[in-house]
Amino acid sequence: MLSDIDCNQQIERHIFKEALPPLQKKLAALQQQVREAGLPVLIVFEGWGASGKGTSIGRLVNPMDPRYFDVLTMSKITEEMLKRPFLWGYWCRIPAKGQITIIDKSWHRIIMPGEKERWGLNESESKAFYHEVRAFERQLTQDGTLIIKLFLHISQAEQARRFKALEEDPSTAWRVKTHDWAQNENYQSNLKHFEEMLKKTNTESNPWYIIEADDKRFSCLKICQTITDVIEKRLENPPSLAASVTPVQSERKFPGILSGVKTEKHIENAEYREELDFLQARMNRLGHKMYVKSRPTVIVYEGWDAAGKGGNIKRLVAELDPRSYAVVPIGPPTPHELGRHYLWRFVRRMPKDGHFTIFDRSWYGRVLIERVEELTPEPVWRRAYDEINEMEQHWVNHGAVLLKFWMHIDKEEQLKRFNARMADPAKQHKITEADWINRSHWDAYEVAVDEMFAKTNKPHAPWVVVESNNKKYARIKVLQTVTDSLDNALR
Amino acid sequence: MLSDIDCNQQIERHIFKEALPPLQKKLAALQQQVREAGLPVLIVFEGWGASGKGTSIGRLVNPMDPRYFDVLTMSKITEEMLKRPFLWGYWCRIPAKGQITIIDKSWHRIIMPGEKERWGLNESESKAFYHEVRAFERQLTQDGTLIIKLFLHISQAEQARRFKALEEDPSTAWRVKTHDWAQNENYQSNLKHFEEMLKKTNTESNPWYIIEADDKRFSCLKICQTITDVIEKRLENPPSLAASVTPVQSERKFPGILSGVKTEKHIENAEYREELDFLQARMNRLGHKMYVKSRPTVIVYEGWDAAGKGGNIKRLVAELDPRSYAVVPIGPPTPHELGRHYLWRFVRRMPKDGHFTIFDRSWYGRVLIERVEELTPEPVWRRAYDEINEMEQHWVNHGAVLLKFWMHIDKEEQLKRFNARMADPAKQHKITEADWINRSHWDAYEVAVDEMFAKTNKPHAPWVVVESNNKKYARIKVLQTVTDSLDNALR
Repeated sequence: MLSDIDCNQQIERHIFKEALPPLQKKLAALQQQVREAGLPVLIVFEGWGASGKGTSIGRLVNPMDPRYFDVLTMSKITEEMLKRPFLWGYWCRIPAKGQITIIDKSWHRIIMPGEKERWGLNESESKAFYHEVRAFERQLTQDGTLIIKLFLHISQAEQARRFKALEEDPSTAWRVKTHDWAQNENYQSNLKHFEEMLKKTNTESNPWYIIEADDKRFSCLKICQTITDVIEKRLENPPSLAASVTPVQSERKFPGILSGVKTEKHIENAEYREELDFLQARMNRLGHKMYVKSRPTVIVYEGWDAAGKGGNIKRLVAELDPRSYAVVPIGPPTPHELGRHYLWRFVRRMPKDGHFTIFDRSWYGRVLIERVEELTPEPVWRRAYDEINEMEQHWVNHGAVLLKFWMHIDKEEQLKRFNARMADPAKQHKITEADWINRSHWDAYEVAVDEMFAKTNKPHAPWVVVESNNKKYARIKVLQTVTDSLDNALR
Repeated sequence: MLSDIDCNQQIERHIFKEALPPLQKKLAALQQQVREAGLPVLIVFEGWGASGKGTSIGRLVNPMDPRYFDVLTMSKITEEMLKRPFLWGYWCRIPAKGQITIIDKSWHRIIMPGEKERWGLNESESKAFYHEVRAFERQLTQDGTLIIKLFLHISQAEQARRFKALEEDPSTAWRVKTHDWAQNENYQSNLKHFEEMLKKTNTESNPWYIIEADDKRFSCLKICQTITDVIEKRLENPPSLAASVTPVQSERKFPGILSGVKTEKHIENAEYREELDFLQARMNRLGHKMYVKSRPTVIVYEGWDAAGKGGNIKRLVAELDPRSYAVVPIGPPTPHELGRHYLWRFVRRMPKDGHFTIFDRSWYGRVLIERVEELTPEPVWRRAYDEINEMEQHWVNHGAVLLKFWMHIDKEEQLKRFNARMADPAKQHKITEADWINRSHWDAYEVAVDEMFAKTNKPHAPWVVVESNNKKYARIKVLQTVTDSLDNALR
């Protein structure tokens, strides 16, 4: 318990002066080793106002090479962040391999009184807060990021003394705000909130380190010592892949959904025209409403090659306000993207409130192509089902409508389309070696798709299989499904 | 003159219905050709409120593949943008090769009454506005971007009619704001402002196309027709490199500044310690002041390999609040970066107000390594002197302090340092093949550096040669120069 800790641990000046330089030297050396090991490190500073976070960060980075660390301060919430789930801004800024990112004020404080309102957390987000924070930290940790969480603890009296000292100096007076004094006056109730926050986010793999910070020398040494210890230990004992994941489940069959799909659904031309006009107009109206209600929409297209994703997307967005949507085609990750958690490149492109993002292929590549082509070890792609469900839940909690389409054609139809493309000079560029390779793995994909459905089909983020042998039928089905879902969400 | 134009050009429905589909088909085909040609296209929509920009953009993109165009709307100014020069947000979003970017409300309107205040333009920025806008457009055009600027013009009566119609429909009433009606009431004075804006940004290479927009069918056809015409013409006659640049100047000698530099400046250890402590503390104080005054600082390090840039930067930032600065090491551009104007990757990393960015190598690579190694054609790197001066001026107008250091050692000293690095296993990684190649081009670099000084040494963004044979002397000189400049800027 925070309240049991004596913040006032003193250390004498001469001991400090002797102890600090070797620690700093070690830190500088560790930074190099972190780079060489390709270890992403996230150091989180939390704590009371005026507990010395800024000074401590300054001392910490002083011996480091400034080209290879980042310091983020999130005290100002940008509109970009406000218009997305609360973890979004942090997701976008996770460290790359070999990089040290230091965060001054982290996601943990979003749940504190006053902050929740500033961040515009809705009820679902507040309720799921701790669950989502733990999931975020666990996901980064499983991906290999070392997270070090420090809480700087000072007493009420010491805090008041520091605010006063800052105020008395004209060059620092601007740093003390009304809400700082409010924190001091309500120290006891804030203490309770901090204790709850610490307790609920103190996990075995991501524990909190409490730093007694009434004495700046003591806290400085303890911070440097803690960080060097944790990094050293981690570099000596890198976690094995197996240990970081839940045990692989024994092989079991998932319901063969795909094989049961009737692909031959059809629609007459006249009916298609009529339905298309009606549904696109409906889409336009609902798009405006989603904008007015500040609700984002995420639509995922997956499916067999040549199933008609491109043309389908085009009809879906045709009457949407073009300023309100983005279509994101997903290809193989770049080296830059491979340097971070695989969800990073998708999260960055998610829509802000009131907007649509349509993904032409998506994060499901992890459990489809990466699984089938053995690009990713099994424990890692298996972990992705949970990661995906948690990420999608985070968006739905924020108010997003999230839909996932599997564009389904049968094997014969695909062959027909491939051959047609090969024969048409204007379409030859649409068919590549990779398409034929994917086709040769048809059965393996079917197994992967069925397991994906079984594990990621959720009421709040459902999979919809779209029978696509007839392209017109497929377009109407997607438009119908999307408009129904939007209409439903807006009720 | 806008006022001479009759906005009310009518077109009959049946003609429209016949004329539009072939135009749209052509647009779809042109989009593919633009992709294949790797042509960046920037389409700008400006005009009166309710002149149909949104609808027109919708019609325009309707036939296009939504995966390969972007629509940007800049009606909301984010804090990120507010805290930087007004062109920054647009710079960050320029189209890549083969991409079409459509902008709804562009940089042009920033000078309109009311907007200037919203964007927080200071006096220098307002004064330089048209100059900077023309420079921005010219730079993109010279780099190969096709800019198409459309102004949608409607009459006062038609605008009022449209606002009323929007207000009467409950589903669109939210779109009409107070400032919209204000624009209508002050139509004549706004007309004058638009006319001035159009006149001052109507250049030969980037002309405005006025679209008479009282009749939506007419404006839709004229927009599609104009865009297809301009893109077609451009694809048929790509500009030759030579035509797009100012003629290459006859070879002339620039003052041999480098060869005259005495590198052997020295400082005693005791004096170094004392000065370092004093200047770093001064740096800390001035850093806070720059933050309070919301003024950004940009510091560029260039110089010979092994001149000690890394260690120098470390001392410069040692006592700065680590939350207030970023050090950006610049390496070769990635393929992603090569897809855009070369300044793009630097502009994106510029500091926001109150912050520091320190570039370890910079945009000057264009006229140094790219020139010497012949990575870039001569007319292109020659053009860069102007581009750089204009870009730096843009930041200084915004309030930035901008300093450029050339870290200078002589050739013998470099050899000594190279050899020392080779001999030290801990430092071997710091010396590569590329360093030896650069060294072999020493004389060519000297010519390039002297010309760079002659052409980009400006009072508002000066070059400072730092004699660096003695690293300690060099650190003190940089700290002294930076703190003096900040102090001076804050007076």
